[in-house]
Amino acid sequence: MTQSSMANISLKENERIDELIREQLQIIQSRDYFTFSVDAILLADFINVAKSKPQRIIDFCTGNGVIPLLLSHKTNNSIEGIDIQPSLVDMAQRSVALNQLEHQIHILQMDIKDLKKPATLYDIVSCNPPYFLVEDSEKAHHITSHAIARHEIHLSLEDWVAKAALLLRDKGKLFFVHRPNRLDDIMETLNKYYFSIHRLQFIHPKEGKNANGMLVEAIYRGGKRGVKVLPPIVVHDADNQYTKEMKAIYFGE
Amino acid sequence: MTQSSMANISLKENERIDELIREQLQIIQSRDYFTFSVDAILLADFINVAKSKPQRIIDFCTGNGVIPLLLSHKTNNSIEGIDIQPSLVDMAQRSVALNQLEHQIHILQMDIKDLKKPATLYDIVSCNPPYFLVEDSEKAHHITSHAIARHEIHLSLEDWVAKAALLLRDKGKLFFVHRPNRLDDIMETLNKYYFSIHRLQFIHPKEGKNANGMLVEAIYRGGKRGVKVLPPIVVHDADNQYTKEMKAIYFGE
Repeated sequence: MTQSSMANISLKENERIDELIREQLQIIQSRDYFTFSVDAILLADFINVAKSKPQRIIDFCTGNGVIPLLLSHKTNNSIEGIDIQPSLVDMAQRSVALNQLEHQIHILQMDIKDLKKPATLYDIVSCNPPYFLVEDSEKAHHITSHAIARHEIHLSLEDWVAKAALLLRDKGKLFFVHRPNRLDDIMETLNKYYFSIHRLQFIHPKEGKNANGMLVEAIYRGGKRGVKVLPPIVVHDADNQYTKEMKAIYFGE
Repeated sequence: MTQSSMANISLKENERIDELIREQLQIIQSRDYFTFSVDAILLADFINVAKSKPQRIIDFCTGNGVIPLLLSHKTNNSIEGIDIQPSLVDMAQRSVALNQLEHQIHILQMDIKDLKKPATLYDIVSCNPPYFLVEDSEKAHHITSHAIARHEIHLSLEDWVAKAALLLRDKGKLFFVHRPNRLDDIMETLNKYYFSIHRLQFIHPKEGKNANGMLVEAIYRGGKRGVKVLPPIVVHDADNQYTKEMKAIYFGE
């Protein structure tokens, strides 16, 4: 174990501290676990939270806590994060401590499927869920931490959408990132649980390439008001450098 | 009435002949009726037809016949076009004659709702349908030709999707253009009639603006194979000129 110079936080084997540059936050990541991706950064940027107006916010599949950490920069409200994997929860909790955000961010180890209807409903649910269907994951012979985070092994699309519906107040918002090839399943599932899509933004890896990600804002029992399709996000330019918009999101340039 | 110099075609009052430049075709349009739009040009460009392999092709809501005319440039197959408005059908038939395409394009005046299951099923249905819900069309006090073409007065989304399902063979393709704000209704309706979306392309009027159009390729009873979201089409550049991709589609540059 090594000691972080920032606070009294221990790093385990194969762990390192990365920077969230624009927000000037630090985050623990591990080679042994799923590290946060550009999707998480884009999702946090996409989520609208109130700076001061009280809101109840929860992040499903929080992993190493990247979404709550980034959201803490946009709101003064408390943020809850839950994940099923104890090692990731431990990592997220140490990242919260590293940034001295224990008063604002609360990471819990639990299975989303065990969530019950709370006395006070939530205003916002966010989720960077497993993307791939189990049937597509047969190559993943060993159920590793990577596989749990990336495939719908423990948690199907319907599982977490149903739980978001259970937790949210009417007109509460669900923000998530997913793969465009699942758009039809996603629309069907959202519809089933009385969500309507309000905003949709596609992520293209490069100009001229098909989208490989999409950001979704869905409203619970808000009525259909028409889908807005925002200008797409293009991640890399022709020279494989981050585009101007990506630099703005990553570095605040 | 004036005479066209190209062929023995009469123009009626308020009619003019416009060029489809890339395809070197001529089309009659009228100030009194809905003229073709950038949507029709983009839809024709988006449709995949076989050059020589026999395919049965039909265009719903064909209006002045712009889609069949443009498709005649991409395939040797016959193309049928139907529309409910006699004056538009007459205009389309004269455009077909003007381009000496009577052997290939057949325009019929009929109500899509009267279509019956044919003995030989179709491979391709295309549609540039009315976009707006009747409830949004209350400003259109008078039911004009414009209103019929733009609002779901005679023909709802479900009407034409159901008829496309009736006409198409298994794995036959439905191509259409629509408004992104109807994406949720569209997905629900396609799903109900056993279509799955195969390709989706959004049309943005300008860089940095929300999409105001989308092109859809849906497959009838083809099974879910994942939605592909293509690179977006941007119509105008910052100087309000057509972008390079639009010039390629319009002018073949």
